[in-house]
Amino acid sequence: MNIGVLGAGQLGRMLALAGYPLGNRFTFLDTTGHPSAGIGEVMIDTDQKHLADFLAKVDLVTYEFEHLPVALVQAIEEQTPVYPSSEAIRVCQNRVEEKALFDRLGIPTPAYRVVEHADELEAAARELGCPVVAKSVTEGYDGKGQVVLRDPSEAEAAWRGIGHPRLIVEAFVDFVREVSIIAVRGRDGEVVFYPMAENQHVDGILRYSVAPLPDLDAAVQQTADGYIRALLDELDYVGVLTLELFQTRDGGLLANEMAPRVHNSGHWTQDGAVTSQFENHLRAIQGLPLGDTAARQPTCMVNVIGREGDAAELLALDDAHLHRYDKAERPGRKLAHVNLVAPTHEALLEKVRACAALLPEAPAPRFSFEP
Amino acid sequence: MNIGVLGAGQLGRMLALAGYPLGNRFTFLDTTGHPSAGIGEVMIDTDQKHLADFLAKVDLVTYEFEHLPVALVQAIEEQTPVYPSSEAIRVCQNRVEEKALFDRLGIPTPAYRVVEHADELEAAARELGCPVVAKSVTEGYDGKGQVVLRDPSEAEAAWRGIGHPRLIVEAFVDFVREVSIIAVRGRDGEVVFYPMAENQHVDGILRYSVAPLPDLDAAVQQTADGYIRALLDELDYVGVLTLELFQTRDGGLLANEMAPRVHNSGHWTQDGAVTSQFENHLRAIQGLPLGDTAARQPTCMVNVIGREGDAAELLALDDAHLHRYDKAERPGRKLAHVNLVAPTHEALLEKVRACAALLPEAPAPRFSFEP
Repeated sequence: MNIGVLGAGQLGRMLALAGYPLGNRFTFLDTTGHPSAGIGEVMIDTDQKHLADFLAKVDLVTYEFEHLPVALVQAIEEQTPVYPSSEAIRVCQNRVEEKALFDRLGIPTPAYRVVEHADELEAAARELGCPVVAKSVTEGYDGKGQVVLRDPSEAEAAWRGIGHPRLIVEAFVDFVREVSIIAVRGRDGEVVFYPMAENQHVDGILRYSVAPLPDLDAAVQQTADGYIRALLDELDYVGVLTLELFQTRDGGLLANEMAPRVHNSGHWTQDGAVTSQFENHLRAIQGLPLGDTAARQPTCMVNVIGREGDAAELLALDDAHLHRYDKAERPGRKLAHVNLVAPTHEALLEKVRACAALLPEAPAPRFSFEP
Repeated sequence: MNIGVLGAGQLGRMLALAGYPLGNRFTFLDTTGHPSAGIGEVMIDTDQKHLADFLAKVDLVTYEFEHLPVALVQAIEEQTPVYPSSEAIRVCQNRVEEKALFDRLGIPTPAYRVVEHADELEAAARELGCPVVAKSVTEGYDGKGQVVLRDPSEAEAAWRGIGHPRLIVEAFVDFVREVSIIAVRGRDGEVVFYPMAENQHVDGILRYSVAPLPDLDAAVQQTADGYIRALLDELDYVGVLTLELFQTRDGGLLANEMAPRVHNSGHWTQDGAVTSQFENHLRAIQGLPLGDTAARQPTCMVNVIGREGDAAELLALDDAHLHRYDKAERPGRKLAHVNLVAPTHEALLEKVRACAALLPEAPAPRFSFEP
């Protein structure tokens, strides 16, 4: 089966690496002019003239990037199966739609307001209580298009800074940690859930993900499973879905945002779970049985951002698995990740610190479960 | 680093799949006109005119197939590093050289004779005691060019059947099981050893490999480690080397043959070991530190030969990992393998039987350690 992928970055690359062993072939459609997948057939379509050629080659279409024109994906759907569907893209690329879906399904979120003017932003900041986060409704990615307001008086500057006609304003949550749940839904409606990960972001960019969590109450995992299952079923979703959440001091969960794709916070599954998120996404979209999502051992994914460390030093760490994306160094750019596996969380944390010390721009790792 | 691979079959394919995460790119040189790697850049060189182009692209050269003209590999070595070296190829592609090396290093083998005439074959069969195996000195692969003589009178027919000017004749060994040891030597001389595997062949084709072995005395592993270390050091070898052995009733080991490359009996390492043989080969030839060779859990590799099973049925097995080669079905052809992982050997054997039942042409699995 030839699988078409919209987007040609590292997520597509890792999908392909998981899919060759299943006998799949891959064709990527890149609309940026800067593909980095470096594997399979990459079609560059900056002039929007190659879609028909692309569709002629592929049996089904998926994507590694949800900020795609919905009309484009709907047009593809008329000819070729697309998983997840355009409806998932439509909802996920619009924070208002997304929040409305969370509300409708009873998935709690931080308090929020939708504003269409600097004055409304100021009022919302006052009402919710600063600090608040103002985010553009569309095109947000990795912290871009977001501003934190420490005082309502900053509304005018924030409004101009973001430069979008519609913003969502969210109350700050006094969270203990950021977590995510990744689940996979098959074409037949079967759903499997990965153990939740704790994620450490710095400047809006994911730096570390650890799973499974040593101190996670089983009831919390079940709650997250319930939330994401509701989303999957409501959207009649096929493939991997990621839901990022805040865990509050009382153990409760508040949904932050979701991504209709394999996700950076699930990269640990490549070396730490029985079946990786990439393989399970491919199994799902092809109608194959889903694989076991259990963790084999405590695992931490360490992102390599901006500058790469020395591969020899990283590979000298025991049970360290390097995943390079074959991209040029650039500040803030995701270049690789390292999956570290250890028999205990204590040993894992030690290894994470050793790994961070080898990376030129890694922030200090800090996890909520550290002693 | 762009790695050149001589040969473009499934071993090259799996090397590439292990090497992309290390940031490697791959260029294959295929001299058969029938490449199947299906990944990286494949140069078809049936007219021997593309070697210079190939070498201009790559930083170093390795191979997935040792039946290459030694002169060709020597010529490449003058321009580009080749790992393992042409000396390893020279020895491994000639059974007489190979046996002489085993003898020189004190590695025991079954009794053997070299013969250059049907009369000598008959005499050797008489002297060693039938049955004996007669093998062509060169170009043997997967049981081709081999004949079993049940009586010395069959010598004339066997000689004509094989049709080579020089044969090696080996006494049959009353072995308990066929085993293999895989080791990796780095550019700096560091050596790591995988746990030995038990291999079940049918008609000269590998069908099952299990590792680690529940009943293997640590002293036997140490003996095998010593043998393969002697070979690696003697050849100043860089990369993965495989040594196939017979284990006799008294626990002793007799060397059968070696292969200067990643090996089918090491495919279990993809899902059953901390670091796969493919990744460790790439680490070795690039001068990177070698990865941990420990087994995570009991693992069995099941070869898919001739006809493929239904992927959905295979993937419904718990902790089953399918590795397809994207090749057309043909009798006797290696098309894929399935790695099965289980917490105990008992559970593993049950899973292997379930898997075999799903494959159209799988023989009954039978292991020496079965109850």
